[in-house]
Amino acid sequence: MAAQRFLSRLGLFPFRFHNTCNKLHLQLRTCSLAGFSSGAGASQGPHQSNRSYDFDSGAISEMRKAYKGTTEIFDVGDLVSKDPFKQFLAWFEEASQVDSIREANAMSLATSTKDGIPSVRMVLMKGIDETGIYFYTNFQSQKAKELEENPNCSIMFYWEALNRSVRVNGVAERISEEESTKYFHSRPKASQIGACVSLQSQVISSRKVLDDRNEELTKKYSSDDTPVPKPDYWGGFKVIPSRFEFWQGQTNRLHDRIVFRKLQPNEEINSETTAEGSNGWFYERLMP
Amino acid sequence: MAAQRFLSRLGLFPFRFHNTCNKLHLQLRTCSLAGFSSGAGASQGPHQSNRSYDFDSGAISEMRKAYKGTTEIFDVGDLVSKDPFKQFLAWFEEASQVDSIREANAMSLATSTKDGIPSVRMVLMKGIDETGIYFYTNFQSQKAKELEENPNCSIMFYWEALNRSVRVNGVAERISEEESTKYFHSRPKASQIGACVSLQSQVISSRKVLDDRNEELTKKYSSDDTPVPKPDYWGGFKVIPSRFEFWQGQTNRLHDRIVFRKLQPNEEINSETTAEGSNGWFYERLMP
Repeated sequence: MAAQRFLSRLGLFPFRFHNTCNKLHLQLRTCSLAGFSSGAGASQGPHQSNRSYDFDSGAISEMRKAYKGTTEIFDVGDLVSKDPFKQFLAWFEEASQVDSIREANAMSLATSTKDGIPSVRMVLMKGIDETGIYFYTNFQSQKAKELEENPNCSIMFYWEALNRSVRVNGVAERISEEESTKYFHSRPKASQIGACVSLQSQVISSRKVLDDRNEELTKKYSSDDTPVPKPDYWGGFKVIPSRFEFWQGQTNRLHDRIVFRKLQPNEEINSETTAEGSNGWFYERLMP
Repeated sequence: MAAQRFLSRLGLFPFRFHNTCNKLHLQLRTCSLAGFSSGAGASQGPHQSNRSYDFDSGAISEMRKAYKGTTEIFDVGDLVSKDPFKQFLAWFEEASQVDSIREANAMSLATSTKDGIPSVRMVLMKGIDETGIYFYTNFQSQKAKELEENPNCSIMFYWEALNRSVRVNGVAERISEEESTKYFHSRPKASQIGACVSLQSQVISSRKVLDDRNEELTKKYSSDDTPVPKPDYWGGFKVIPSRFEFWQGQTNRLHDRIVFRKLQPNEEINSETTAEGSNGWFYERLMP
C-alpha cells in the first residue's frame, strides 16, 4: 500500500469523514477500488530443488503468541453503525491504513456447484454500494460458471494484522455490460490486455503461450488512440448480502462474533439476544 | 511470528533440510502447527461512532502498484517437487519465514450444504501428512455440521506478501477420538478451557455470558493436576485432497497457475499439456 501511504501523506486518503452529514457516501463503487492491482508480491526465496523437510517438534510446540487480555474485545457498543454496510466500511478503512495489509480489498470468494461441491479462491473487491459488493472476472472462469448455475456464494475478508474477519453470505448477479465496460476502461492498458490474453482456467502447454499472445496484443494496442475493446466474456458480478458476520479474534479463543441478518418471513425475534439495526437489518452475538 | 523469529535465531526453526535424505518427513502433523495461536492482532484504531464516509475518486484511481516484470514467474521448472504435498510444504515454509505473515497456517475453508449454499471462514491448519490436511473444530459449528452432511470442501492458503496462493479441493473426514484427545491436551490450558466455554455458533445475550463461564471453568481447572477433559463435541477433521492449485500472482495479471490432480477413471491425458508427477499425481498449467 505504498501508493496509499503516499496519498495519505498528501491528505488524499480515499475516505473522508463528513461529520456534518449522515448520508453514506459510496462513490467507492464506481472506481474507488479500481485502483488496486492484483498484488505486488515480496521477493521470494530462491527455488531449492528436490529438498526434503524435517522438523523439530520440541521447538515448535513452544511457539505460542502471548495473550493480550481483553483490550481487543469487540462488543455491540463498538459498532460504528447498526447498518452492516457502514460497519464494514469502517473496518475496511481501518484495514486499508495498516501497512502490513497490502490489499484490504482481497476477499475469499466461495462458490458451489448445484450439487454442493464448493470452491474458494481470492478475488479483489472492486466496489461496494448500499446494494452489494462488486468484483470482475472472466465469465469462462469456474467461479463465473458456478455462479451462473448457482448464485449462492460466500465472501470473507480476513485482516490478519487487525485479527478481524468479515463474512458475507448472499447471491451474485451479473452487472450490466455498460457498467462492466466502464470499469474495464478504467483499468490500466496492460490489465485490459491481460483480460484479452487469458481464456481463464483453460489448460495451456506453457507460459510462452501467454507471453507471446500478450506481446502480440501489446503491439496491436500500443498507440494511445487504439482502445482495447472489452471482451464479451469479461465483466462484473454484484453480491447482494443477506448476512454479515463481524469477527474479532481474541487470543484466549473467546472470539467476538456479531452477525447482521435479515429476518425470515414471520420470524419472531428473541429480544434477549436479537436487536433491530438499521435499514431492515437485525443483529445478534454468536458464541465463538 | 515473533516466537518463530526467536526460534529461528536459536536455530530452532521448525523445518530442517535433509540434503542426504529424500524421504519427506511430516512429523509436522502431530504437533508442528499446534504451536500457532489464533492470531495476535495489531492494535486497533479507536472506535469512532456514527461516522459517515466520503471518498476522493480522483486520488484512488491513481493508486496502482508498480509492475515488477517477470522475475516472479513460477513455471514447471520452479516446482520443488512433482508431489503437491512436498511443493506445498516448500511454499508453506517460505511463507512461515516472512515476518509480515503472522500465521502462514491460516486457511480459508469453504463448505457447502447438500443443496449448494456455500460458506467460507478462516481456520488454522494444525497438521499435514501424506494423506491430508488437519484442523480442529467444534462439531456443533456450521462447518462441522455441513461437512457431516456433505464432506466436499475447498481450502485456500493466501500468502499476500509472497503473492502466492494454494487451493486444495477434497473431502473431509473426522479423525479418531484418540487423535483429537491427544491434540486437545497439547493446547495451552486456556485454549482447552476456551473449547469448553463455547457452544459454537449459538446465539448469546452478551459477552458477559462467555466471560463468566470462562472464569468459572478457569477456577475449576486452576490446579495443574486437574486436567481439562476434551468435550465430546470437539475434535479434528482431515481433508483428503484430490486437487492442488499453486498460484503465483503476476503484476501484469498473467498469473501462473499450476494444478496437480488425480486422473478420472479411464482418462486419456494430452501429453502436450499434462505431465505425470509423483505418487499418482498429474500436473498441468492453467490460463490465469
